[in-house]
Amino acid sequence: MDFGRIGRQTVRLRHQPSVVSWANIGGKMEGNGPLAAHFDELDDDPFFGKKTWEQGESAMQGRALRRALQKGGLAPEDLDYILAGDLLNQCIGSSFGLREFGIPFWGIYGACSTMGEGLALAAMLIDGGFARHAAAVTSSHFCTAERQYRMPVPYGSQRTPTAQWTATAAGCCILGEQGDGPYVTHVTCGRIVDLGVTDPNNMGAAMAPAACDTLSALFRETRTGPADYDLIVTGDLGQLGHDVVVDLMGRDGFDMGRGCTDCGLLLFDRKKQDMHAGGSGCGCSAAVFNGYLLKGMRSGTWKRIVFAPTGALLSPTSSFQGESIPSICHAVVLSRTREV
Amino acid sequence: MDFGRIGRQTVRLRHQPSVVSWANIGGKMEGNGPLAAHFDELDDDPFFGKKTWEQGESAMQGRALRRALQKGGLAPEDLDYILAGDLLNQCIGSSFGLREFGIPFWGIYGACSTMGEGLALAAMLIDGGFARHAAAVTSSHFCTAERQYRMPVPYGSQRTPTAQWTATAAGCCILGEQGDGPYVTHVTCGRIVDLGVTDPNNMGAAMAPAACDTLSALFRETRTGPADYDLIVTGDLGQLGHDVVVDLMGRDGFDMGRGCTDCGLLLFDRKKQDMHAGGSGCGCSAAVFNGYLLKGMRSGTWKRIVFAPTGALLSPTSSFQGESIPSICHAVVLSRTREV
Repeated sequence: MDFGRIGRQTVRLRHQPSVVSWANIGGKMEGNGPLAAHFDELDDDPFFGKKTWEQGESAMQGRALRRALQKGGLAPEDLDYILAGDLLNQCIGSSFGLREFGIPFWGIYGACSTMGEGLALAAMLIDGGFARHAAAVTSSHFCTAERQYRMPVPYGSQRTPTAQWTATAAGCCILGEQGDGPYVTHVTCGRIVDLGVTDPNNMGAAMAPAACDTLSALFRETRTGPADYDLIVTGDLGQLGHDVVVDLMGRDGFDMGRGCTDCGLLLFDRKKQDMHAGGSGCGCSAAVFNGYLLKGMRSGTWKRIVFAPTGALLSPTSSFQGESIPSICHAVVLSRTREV
Repeated sequence: MDFGRIGRQTVRLRHQPSVVSWANIGGKMEGNGPLAAHFDELDDDPFFGKKTWEQGESAMQGRALRRALQKGGLAPEDLDYILAGDLLNQCIGSSFGLREFGIPFWGIYGACSTMGEGLALAAMLIDGGFARHAAAVTSSHFCTAERQYRMPVPYGSQRTPTAQWTATAAGCCILGEQGDGPYVTHVTCGRIVDLGVTDPNNMGAAMAPAACDTLSALFRETRTGPADYDLIVTGDLGQLGHDVVVDLMGRDGFDMGRGCTDCGLLLFDRKKQDMHAGGSGCGCSAAVFNGYLLKGMRSGTWKRIVFAPTGALLSPTSSFQGESIPSICHAVVLSRTREV
């Protein structure tokens, strides 16, 4: 079978790096949600022991990385690269949260697709022989995101029904040349897709076309379909965006069926927790992946999954200027066994 | 000779990708500076034909990419990846400027080191067999940066003597498997370095230790010294930061000598243009590299250079919260001939 680039967007990895370790951390709402048992750490303190929300978000990234290193029996010196970024302006969650580790650092920005981008690049850097271990780290925080993108939380702004709830969470995944799996077999790099949606309170609808673009490319270029995967998990589309993806993919002949869900639907109980359209934020897909999903793969619940987080590449400034919302989705295929 | 990772931070590339094409674009001040003849496009309009400064900055990125493609006889479909980012919140310069091209996109954030990070990752993705052509793109804009980081330009704020001037410029470099050089032979990934400088108006001093950390690693891990390179160009330290680097490296036994300069010192005439400590911004090192430096290498002025742009990973929020300035520097070695 061919290795390397097998289509416009998809790469098939030759050595298929392994997930070596992972960790996640969440806040109070995440601890009240259905995935509470799948967190390594839960903290009711929105400051995570620091003085500001932003410092708290940084602390989450540091704790997630430290925990993943510890679970994998690794030291910071064992990591050749960290790939990290977050939603905060200039990605300060990562730069302040990870500076003390002294690990070679590639800053990335993919909005809520960041965990997918980090995993994809880490997998290729290992597969290409440039690293033996590399970590992908990201986070989001409800209070830092509300203040930066909308209104400070104490204002008590009314949320629209299409709005999603930014997760207060972080996740870290360490990939390595060797390991017990799951293994990264394919990476599909997203293109920027913008169909003209301008409502920053309906990000699911804005991002859904990007998810469709990337999933279609993955299926086409690997000659597979939804039925070839036990689970296809988009990131943070919420209920509205998820429905759009199922609909659009169906029109293109892909029956997404029961094996398709979204991290924004998994992290919270929408009925009990009043999360409107679902969870969002880099930390949402990062926490769901580096807990529930990887544990399920290790335990054999799923043998082959597509993890496809999406990001909305807007800013408050671009919205104020009347711009639409460019979006992106990066997909990573993970398998219990290496595909020879 | 060994390939792949040869030290904690440095990778030696096996196939040594080639620079295939490049382009840069600048604004009015850049056109009045000493490197005016080394720009592909100069535009006196700070809006670059758009309605807002941010849209203008995006337009610069699109124009730089289009020009580089054209100069290289390439179409967007020939590019397997773009790696791009900028200083604007959520990197909207890149997402809006590059969305129309439909090229698989990895968003990166390295502040003013972005061109170095993009080149480094592009070189590794090509070297690892994941891409045949990949582009690194970035930009900065004086007016968008002033508004976001300091005060809107119309306020006419007084600038401190240690302040630098954010370049209004963009650059694009296309690397490929094959080409006439120069070739990327080594990549040294930076670590986040923070020695506690808290003055956001003295970024040169904050970033200088990061430059020293990366240059020291490069010299140590490749067993070379400053004398082995015709030119060592840091990015956007300005006069103060440059002096600190020469001083600190000297104390570590590295005589940086006459072959060491800084993009922030090259782009503007500090005496005539009143730029205080020098130029800065992602677009500064990007424009100097994708013009003056690459032309000089092609024409034989320099055979082997180190391009080492630095980034300050702060945000206005982190400064308001009293935080110091974490910095990073990524180094790329380029040579007229492939090193076997």
